This record gives sequence, structure tokens and C-alpha cells, in this order.
Amino acid sequence: MVNGFDVADLASQPADIASMIERRNGLLGPGYQLFYADPIEVTAARGVYLYGRDGTEYLDAYNNVAQIGHCHPRVVEAVSRQLATLNTNTRYLQKPLLDLAEHLLAHFPAPLDRVTLTCTGSEANDLATRIARHHTGAGGIIVTANAYHGVTSSVAAYSPSLGPGAPLGPHVRTIAAPDPAAYPDEVALIAAVRDDVRRAADDLTRAGYGVSACLLDTVFSSDGVFTHPPGVLRALADEVRSYGAVLIADEVQAGFGRTGDDWWGFARHGFVPDIVTMGKPMGNGYPVAAVVLRAEIGRAFETAVRYFNTFGGSTTAAVAAQAVVTVIEEEDLVARARQVGASLGDALRDLADGTDLIGAVRGVGMFYGVELSAGGSSGDNARIAREVVNRMRRAGVLISASGPQGNVLKIRPPLTFDQTHVDRLAETLAAALRSVDRTARKV
Amino acid sequence: MVNGFDVADLASQPADIASMIERRNGLLGPGYQLFYADPIEVTAARGVYLYGRDGTEYLDAYNNVAQIGHCHPRVVEAVSRQLATLNTNTRYLQKPLLDLAEHLLAHFPAPLDRVTLTCTGSEANDLATRIARHHTGAGGIIVTANAYHGVTSSVAAYSPSLGPGAPLGPHVRTIAAPDPAAYPDEVALIAAVRDDVRRAADDLTRAGYGVSACLLDTVFSSDGVFTHPPGVLRALADEVRSYGAVLIADEVQAGFGRTGDDWWGFARHGFVPDIVTMGKPMGNGYPVAAVVLRAEIGRAFETAVRYFNTFGGSTTAAVAAQAVVTVIEEEDLVARARQVGASLGDALRDLADGTDLIGAVRGVGMFYGVELSAGGSSGDNARIAREVVNRMRRAGVLISASGPQGNVLKIRPPLTFDQTHVDRLAETLAAALRSVDRTARKV
Repeated sequence: MVNGFDVADLASQPADIASMIERRNGLLGPGYQLFYADPIEVTAARGVYLYGRDGTEYLDAYNNVAQIGHCHPRVVEAVSRQLATLNTNTRYLQKPLLDLAEHLLAHFPAPLDRVTLTCTGSEANDLATRIARHHTGAGGIIVTANAYHGVTSSVAAYSPSLGPGAPLGPHVRTIAAPDPAAYPDEVALIAAVRDDVRRAADDLTRAGYGVSACLLDTVFSSDGVFTHPPGVLRALADEVRSYGAVLIADEVQAGFGRTGDDWWGFARHGFVPDIVTMGKPMGNGYPVAAVVLRAEIGRAFETAVRYFNTFGGSTTAAVAAQAVVTVIEEEDLVARARQVGASLGDALRDLADGTDLIGAVRGVGMFYGVELSAGGSSGDNARIAREVVNRMRRAGVLISASGPQGNVLKIRPPLTFDQTHVDRLAETLAAALRSVDRTARKV
Repeated sequence: MVNGFDVADLASQPADIASMIERRNGLLGPGYQLFYADPIEVTAARGVYLYGRDGTEYLDAYNNVAQIGHCHPRVVEAVSRQLATLNTNTRYLQKPLLDLAEHLLAHFPAPLDRVTLTCTGSEANDLATRIARHHTGAGGIIVTANAYHGVTSSVAAYSPSLGPGAPLGPHVRTIAAPDPAAYPDEVALIAAVRDDVRRAADDLTRAGYGVSACLLDTVFSSDGVFTHPPGVLRALADEVRSYGAVLIADEVQAGFGRTGDDWWGFARHGFVPDIVTMGKPMGNGYPVAAVVLRAEIGRAFETAVRYFNTFGGSTTAAVAAQAVVTVIEEEDLVARARQVGASLGDALRDLADGTDLIGAVRGVGMFYGVELSAGGSSGDNARIAREVVNRMRRAGVLISASGPQGNVLKIRPPLTFDQTHVDRLAETLAAALRSVDRTARKV
């Protein structure tokens, strides 16, 4: 992890934090990583803010679970009331699940007309690819080169961003995330994307796996955030379908209005996937996730296997997701993400114009990637990104970094961000870039 | 599913229920199964009761998620308070997670000293077997013949109870659940169990997979409930370990005091597993699950891969589980499961003495399996079991049926059951058995 605390730096921490980290390592093991060179103990949150134990206020421009703001009263109230009334599974008839399903599906274009509830985004992707295998009879999977789709065994095998410790399955092939900077124009980009899909699909076919599915995070978060030009994924989808494979849009990152264009990231690319998965922000922190699909795609799986998930679609999960969907509608958060996000994009591009540290600003709505590229090597750039992230954290603004080289600042605020938050974020980032200019680059 | 509603019977349902089922099938698809020949619309729950929309009170002797009773005020209050305060992930330091980890681990014997939080029991088993593969370098998995361990792709591949639609992986071998009725004495049973493990392990070795793990539901729920003699699993564990494999106790069903002997089902068998998984009742309905293990077993995985689960170990999940652990302690629910469970066992054995329908009563604490075996064929027995379950449902008492032949009544009440509940359950079961005696058997 680019932005992880290194336990070798334990001695640099205040005594209370150091002892908490030691206690944590003893109980949970060193595999549990913390954010930031100086980890934060959080004890409260509200709206766009996280609060440290010492009362420090952090502007949260990173947590994409609290999509409608931390501890949104509407969700807290709905979940609390439901927990006190009834919280059980889908083997009983329950109106809240049906209301949620109807309400959620109303935000999807035809022919996406069925939903299956899971508990986590990992489970949603795991189920989506099982369904795709049953539908196609094939086993091969295509993902982008640094994709992250989740942590079950099956999903980790097609999540290259987990690194070499979690090797890809023999049935997995990768394609490049669509980076317009690598091509002279959109026509060339689209041709390259199509070529790449054909290469991967032909290779899977030759290897005997066939192609069951292509999964795409429609904003390519862990690949470094690639959002333009809109429309490029339509060509990719056409190519994938020409192999009889299922197109799965992983909307765990892009969904629920984050792109500001629409509820789902695929929409701005002008195509309709066969399956859509979603998770993180769906319950604003309450664990709930889902697979939305065309009924026809699910038929083979439903007939042969069926699916039951104890917590997926439980009463409270349904109520939590219903509250989130309602708040996004009533607070008009998709439009807000578009408007405030446009201002965020402008502010980041202004910053880029004023420094040679930034090589590219990519993104849309409330999801931006700022690529740092002035360092002499990719290692330098990752170090600079880390330094920027940590300087901002010390100044009370939370972001992180990602991308295959770890040199892309990842900015992903709640959709309830306003102009004052954008200003504070931009000023803090500007100051961090100025300081880093004077220090880390010279190492 | 033995006890599923058949959509062909839609016309037999009241108009409001029928239209709700149709709406549900349209939104969720026919893969979403309902319990009972007459599905129940539930709208409220409290303690040991579920309530239908029409106000009907159902004594719930089946739902093992609401382990400490539906809507337990302690959990509702703790979760509601936390949701309004802070609910975020483990990348930040948070005291509630550490307090839970310490509190939970205090209920495990040495050398089980580490915990990793997941969101669901499926994720816990999925992670446990990934860890086992990394630790052993082997890939083979041994489970019992009708085991159920979860629904991720990887876990479904070693959950034979899902049926032929979800085929076992080539790296999976099954052994028989230890059924004392099949052997003259305990010595013969243990010898057979050891033989069975050797056969499976040798076969995996010959096939080149090696043996990474044996997973055991320590009460063998979906195999038909096998709990005696205590101690038999110690021999099995010894045999598994002689192959260098990891012994995983799946305590999703047996854990958190259900057996009445101890917090965990493995304890009554006198052995300590290498990894323990838990889920369903851990948050009494709030989604939270965990893997507990020896630090040494997790080292290879932690070093090479690490693990992060967005919802696993989030603030509210930790607080929910902490509340459950505290209630089990403060309400002395393990002892209660033992005492009331003994009375439940006596009542069921008394019933068995009075009817030729019951072939065996198996179980311990608050988990009983009642095998029906008077029918002419296994199909008859499953039909009788289904009829008993549905007659009891109509009389307001909820149980279900399982086992490879579907002829084992599965009784799994909240640990807060008292003697009056046992009496009502036993009387209702007796009446159902009497009625079924006069009808279904003669078909």
C-alpha cells in the first residue's frame, strides 16, 4: 500500500499511539495496515469530517463508503429503528427488501431488471463471475492491468492490484486501462482498446478457457483513474460481446452518483452492461452490496445453483440502502457531484498549471486522480505522492494515492462536499506541493 | 431446499401473499427461495418471537443469527449509538476493534491468539482456506459429505450440500460425518473416521494437490447434526495434522455458546483447531464475522498477501460483536443453553420414545436434529419432515429440516429459550407428529 504506516517507524509516534499500534499488532497481526506515516485514531465523524481523539478535525476527501456524508442522520435513524423492530433474512417475505429492489432498479436502464443482494462488493463480484460462467459455459476472465475487484479467493485471482503475492489465475488475462495520453487521438485509443481485448480474448480461447466475462471498474480507480473520453468503453463492450462474453460493470467505486453524470459510471460511456455490481457506499457504512443483471443472464445459475446470503438483503440492509438511495435523490447529490466536482476539477487543473510536479489531472464528478510525474523515477514519484498525502494529513485533509506506480493522488470526497471544502482541499494540496517541491524531490 | 415454497403453489396462497411473491419473483428472480409451504410475511421480532403482518406470533426455534434473541436491546442500543458517532474502516486506529479483539480472544484457548475480521461467514471460510494454502503450500481440501461452508466461488466448491449444480472442485475430497449409529462402539467409529481421513488425504496427495486443510462444522449441521460422542473429532484432528494440513473449525453454526458446553463446538471434542471461523450470530444480525488463528499459521499469507475488508471490523461491526459477547457473558447464556438445552433434549427423546416416526435424536445445547425414519423410502421421510415443519409453522412454531435426505428436523432456538418455550415446542412437535402419522405416511 502506497500510503501505509511502516511499523519500523513506531518509535516516531507519540506514546499513546505507539502503544495502541503495538496492541493492535498483537491482536490483529501485522497484516492489518494503517493509513499515513502518522496513523490517526478516529473517534467521531460527521458529514465531510472525521475527528481524532484529540479533537482534531479532518476534512475527509477519501472515504467513499460515507458517500452521503459520515453518520447521515437519515440512515442512522432508519437503521436504528429497523434494528429495534426486525432484522432477519430473505427466506421470509419482507416489504423493505422489495421496496429497495424496486427503488434501486428504477435507477437502471432496461434491460437490467433483476437484483440479488450480497453483503460486500467482493461477494457481489464473486457472484457476478459465477453467474457469467454459468451463462456462457466459459471460464476466462478479462480485467484491466491494475484492477482491484475484491478479496475472496476467486476475486483476488482477478485483482492484479493485490500484487505478486496474490497471483492471477491461469484463466485471467489483463488489458490496459484506457489512457488517452498514450494515443494521438480517440480513434487510435479505441483501436488500441479493441486490439487489446481481442488479444486477451483470443489468448483465453486458445488456452481452452473461453471468455466468460470482462469486468471493468468504470472509473479505473486502482489503475490510476481513467475517465475520458466518455464513450470509449462502448467500443470495449462491443468487442467483449463479440466473443459471447458477459460485460460486468463494477460500480463499487463509480456508482451511486459519484461521477456526477449519472447514478452509474457506465452510463457516461453510452453502453448498458449485462451485469452491474455495487457495494461500499450502498448503505453509507452499513454492510450491503448487490448484483443487478438482466434476468436472462442469471437464468442458468438460478436454475442450477441458486444463491442465499444470510446477511445479504436482510431487513436492516434493505432499509439502509433504501435510505441512501432516497437521500441521493432528495438532496440531489448526483447534480451536486457534477457541479461541485466540476469546480474540484478546475481547482486541480489550476494547480497543475502552476507546478511541474503534476503530469495529469484525470477524473470526473467526485473522483479525481492527480498524477505526479516530475520525479526522476517512478519510485521518486511514489515517494513524492506519499509525502504530499502525509503533509495534507498533517494539515487536516485526508486523501490517498494509488495507481500501478503509486504516484496518483486519489481524491474521492463525500458527494456532500461544497465549495468551501473544495477550496480548503485545493489550498492544502497547493501548500503540500509547494513544500514537497522544496524537500522530497531533492533526495 | 427441503423446506422451500414451491412457486407452483402460488394459487393456494392468500391474494396479498400471492401478489407479494409475484412482485418478489419479478424483482429478485425465482432463485430467491422462501421458507414453508405457506410463506410468512414478517414485520417485527422480539426475543424468541417473530411476528407476522397479521400479528401472529411465531416461536422462533430456527434462526441462529438472533442468537441472543431478536432485537436484543443491548445490541440495538450499542449499534445505534455507534452509527450516529462513527463508522469507518480499519485503516484508522480505533479502540472498539481492539477491545473486541481482546474480548473475543479471551474466549479462545492458547495458542489461538490472532483475529481477522470479515463481514460474512463465507468470507471467513474463504480467507481461512487461503491462509491454509499459503501456510502449507498445498491445495487439497477435506470436508464432510454434506457440508455447507458458504457461498463464495471458492467456498461453494467445497460445500457439497449445495448440490450437483455447484460441483466440488477437483481439489476437494469428502469424508463421512461421524455417525455413531453406523458403528458398534466408539473405538470402531474412531477407527473409521481415521480411515476415512487417510483415504481422502492419500487420494489428494496422489492427485498432486496435497492437503492444505480439513474444514469441520463442529456440529455437522447440514450433514444432519452429529454431536456425539464428544472427543471423536480429536482423533480426526490428529489424523489431519499427520499430513501437515491445517485443521479449521467452522463455528458459524456451533459457536458463541450454542452447544452449551463451551463457547465453541470444538472444545467439547477436546482439541484446539489451527484456525476457527465464525459468523452468523456474531453481531446478532449486524453483519460481522471473523477468523481466529495461531499467529504462526497466518504468517506466510500476511507477508505475501495481506487482507483488507472494507466492512470487516468497521467501528459498528466491532461494537455489535462486543455487545453480543458481553450479553452472552452477562446473561450467562452458555450455561442457559446447557440447562434449557438438556431439557429440550429430554423432551425430544421422550417424544421419540412415543412414536415410531423418529429414528434418532441427536444434538446438544440449543442445537438438535431429529431424524425421521419410519417412511418406506428416503423420499417418504423427507416428505414427512416437510409436513411436520409446515404443520408446526401453522401452529406458530418455526423449525426447518436438513440432512442429505432432508429427513432431519433442525431445531436451533435462540439461547434465551426458557422452559415454557421448550414445552410449547415439544407439544407442537408432538401434535404435528400425531397428525402426520394419520396422513402423509399413508400416501
